Amino acid sequence: MAAEKIPYKIYLSEEEMPRTWYNVRADMKNKPAPLLNPATGQPMGYEDLRPVFCDELIRQELDNDTREIPIPDEIRHFYKMYRPSPLVRAYCLEKKLGTPAKIYYKFEGNNTSGSHKLNSAIAQAYYAKQQGLKGVTTETGAGQWGTALSMACAYLGLDCQVYMVKCSYEQKPFRREVMRVYGASVTPSPSTTTQVGRRILAEHPGTTGSLGCAISEAVEKATTTPGYRYVLGSVLNQVLLHQSVIGLESKAALDKYGVVPDIIIGCAGGGSNLGGLISPFMGQKLRGEQDYRIIAVEPASCPSFTRGKFAYDFCDTGMVCPLAKMYTLGSNFIPSPNHAGGLRYHGMSSVLSQLYHDGLMEAVAVEQTKVFEAAEEFARVEGILPAPESSHAIRVAIDEALRCKETGEEKTILFGLTGTGYFDMVAYEKFHNGEMTDTIPTDAELEASFARLPQVPGQD
Amino acid sequence: MAAEKIPYKIYLSEEEMPRTWYNVRADMKNKPAPLLNPATGQPMGYEDLRPVFCDELIRQELDNDTREIPIPDEIRHFYKMYRPSPLVRAYCLEKKLGTPAKIYYKFEGNNTSGSHKLNSAIAQAYYAKQQGLKGVTTETGAGQWGTALSMACAYLGLDCQVYMVKCSYEQKPFRREVMRVYGASVTPSPSTTTQVGRRILAEHPGTTGSLGCAISEAVEKATTTPGYRYVLGSVLNQVLLHQSVIGLESKAALDKYGVVPDIIIGCAGGGSNLGGLISPFMGQKLRGEQDYRIIAVEPASCPSFTRGKFAYDFCDTGMVCPLAKMYTLGSNFIPSPNHAGGLRYHGMSSVLSQLYHDGLMEAVAVEQTKVFEAAEEFARVEGILPAPESSHAIRVAIDEALRCKETGEEKTILFGLTGTGYFDMVAYEKFHNGEMTDTIPTDAELEASFARLPQVPGQD
Repeated sequence: MAAEKIPYKIYLSEEEMPRTWYNVRADMKNKPAPLLNPATGQPMGYEDLRPVFCDELIRQELDNDTREIPIPDEIRHFYKMYRPSPLVRAYCLEKKLGTPAKIYYKFEGNNTSGSHKLNSAIAQAYYAKQQGLKGVTTETGAGQWGTALSMACAYLGLDCQVYMVKCSYEQKPFRREVMRVYGASVTPSPSTTTQVGRRILAEHPGTTGSLGCAISEAVEKATTTPGYRYVLGSVLNQVLLHQSVIGLESKAALDKYGVVPDIIIGCAGGGSNLGGLISPFMGQKLRGEQDYRIIAVEPASCPSFTRGKFAYDFCDTGMVCPLAKMYTLGSNFIPSPNHAGGLRYHGMSSVLSQLYHDGLMEAVAVEQTKVFEAAEEFARVEGILPAPESSHAIRVAIDEALRCKETGEEKTILFGLTGTGYFDMVAYEKFHNGEMTDTIPTDAELEASFARLPQVPGQD
Repeated sequence: MAAEKIPYKIYLSEEEMPRTWYNVRADMKNKPAPLLNPATGQPMGYEDLRPVFCDELIRQELDNDTREIPIPDEIRHFYKMYRPSPLVRAYCLEKKLGTPAKIYYKFEGNNTSGSHKLNSAIAQAYYAKQQGLKGVTTETGAGQWGTALSMACAYLGLDCQVYMVKCSYEQKPFRREVMRVYGASVTPSPSTTTQVGRRILAEHPGTTGSLGCAISEAVEKATTTPGYRYVLGSVLNQVLLHQSVIGLESKAALDKYGVVPDIIIGCAGGGSNLGGLISPFMGQKLRGEQDYRIIAVEPASCPSFTRGKFAYDFCDTGMVCPLAKMYTLGSNFIPSPNHAGGLRYHGMSSVLSQLYHDGLMEAVAVEQTKVFEAAEEFARVEGILPAPESSHAIRVAIDEALRCKETGEEKTILFGLTGTGYFDMVAYEKFHNGEMTDTIPTDAELEASFARLPQVPGQD
């Protein structure tokens, strides 16, 4: 179909919205490694996980076989408040770059949480509610996940307790207020409200916190408060399952116009957006139906894929969580405080880690000043002010499009625009004032962190 | 058509987007009164306005006869980046309220400016560019208009100088950064960069500013800088013309499903959103084709319609602008500093003023604490965090829906959700902390302000 026929924004109808999530694990030959009990080194089963997670979510977490999992009606109703999200043809960016490449982005920022996180938040809150729980605890870094969970909980009438990484809590005071609009309680982490928080504060006074640390606190709070469970916005298999709605909608929208992407690009922190975006395309690739270049983009200051180790590690700094096999910088790794671009997690989804390990996708690390340059260039021509996290994908999409300009190739690029940057203006201000710097961990720093990886039988 | 068939969000296709703006003045029997030259008391013609406004925009300003004005292709291209905007059926709000009323809202917040202002910003910037100008000046209150104009100017490569009402500048530091992303320069008003600013600062030291004052500064800057003109985000006839795209899309979306609203509600500051939303419906009403209840909602602390005088007045505090006939509180009126809800302008669009004067629409004033209560209730069920300005309309839509609940009437309510409140978290914080109060000007205050209205021949 001629390019002229493709609208600026492709919207599916509500009826065309997926009725099932797609579980990419069903098509993986090498399944992601199971979670291990840190005390015994044994795989964790359904019963082991029940004190921490909601029952139905554990079933989804452990299910490596069911390809399609139905989306409950109540979740679909909620989705309809902000989905289907638009697949945008970046005509203005293409023109500005003078590239023959065709660029599409799936924009997940048109909701108050400002990102794709809401897709899994409503699912997790729904199953917690179904189980008759009183509330949930969680952590949040940049704040999107906490806001998303607050929104989902407000909608369903669940209590919501959020541990927010301290540096984000301080850099983004307004995020806290948004969560309050939705009735959540927000605590900066590390805090004195948990044993693990107090321990981390004692060991690292003045720390600006990390996602791994906030996770520890939220897990402790959930497991010590009756009627509560812990929920997590990324990394877990279940989250990638829920986020598959991004990829399924993207693929349906492209299919409608007969467009097949050559390159699919997503930012990667814990992997929720990237895993969701690529899932149906990766499924085709795994089944040998179609090939795609798939690129994970991560910050050079927190480079799990490109410089991490594929090993069992703790999901949290406090080492209270199960062990997951993943690309990791070590659960003690905390990115340099000058890092403003989100994607601060030390590890990576086990599913994506396995796929990367098996050579099914690439990864590239980018520096944050280059990321903000791309963000501003994008904002000025496409109108949308992107989140720093999303801007990692923009950076590489622009780089790939400029490569096409050199070679004259008319490649089709799809990237995930996970959200908006309205609450990231402190970071943009630093960038404008020339105060933003790049910091890359040294090899010695990483080696020191790797040396503290847990001992697991059979692991290198 | 059965209610079940109506989706949560009605999206028109890009092809269904209006190709012409609708000029409601063409259908008005009593035309809005002309702008007057304050020195001579004579109506201002094309040549009189040229030092201030762009040529084509003056033509639109003065044109009371042409019903349909074509939207240039380049503006339509820009519109396609964020339009058509969704018309949302508020199923969740209806359920929460337990009302038999059917509630729809036209949501204009899905763009980085966060409001409908972009619809006119791109039009005004386009005509400035066409005229070969170097840049434009403007004022902004809540910040949406300044952001919108910055975005439009960045897209077209025009310089953009924004005078921002000082209290907003201080309450919304991040708005300034968003404008900087789009390359605009932002000055808090009153400032020392203009004669009128220096005069106002001398007369009212410590003033938190007003839109009227910022307008004076922006006009002075434009008329004293070669290659610049002044543009305005509300009040003017041309702005209502551009904003008619809101109403045209709303009507097209409703028509598609055979829905006819009984009540149409919009917030009113200068009138840009309300005027745009109601225009095609008002056109039907003026032509005797259909009747609607049309309600303007304004803050009780700045009640131009409900307590103002219908008289010729200055559009700005500095009295450098033409005189407009409108409902006004007096160009010296400045709302109490505790007022957080936007809609701070002392006057009102001449078009809407005439329509109100002729009994074609109603007006109601609401207190800000009630407005924020409605905002939070709406956010929790509909997901969107609304701008304080938009929340005025939400308040009255909820009140009307609750009235339907009492009477059992199944009325159809349409309201304008002009934008999002992501940059209004200081106000939400005050509300949450119980620090928000209501202030209503006394009759004596208003009388004192009215006493300073300009003397115009033939005016009561």
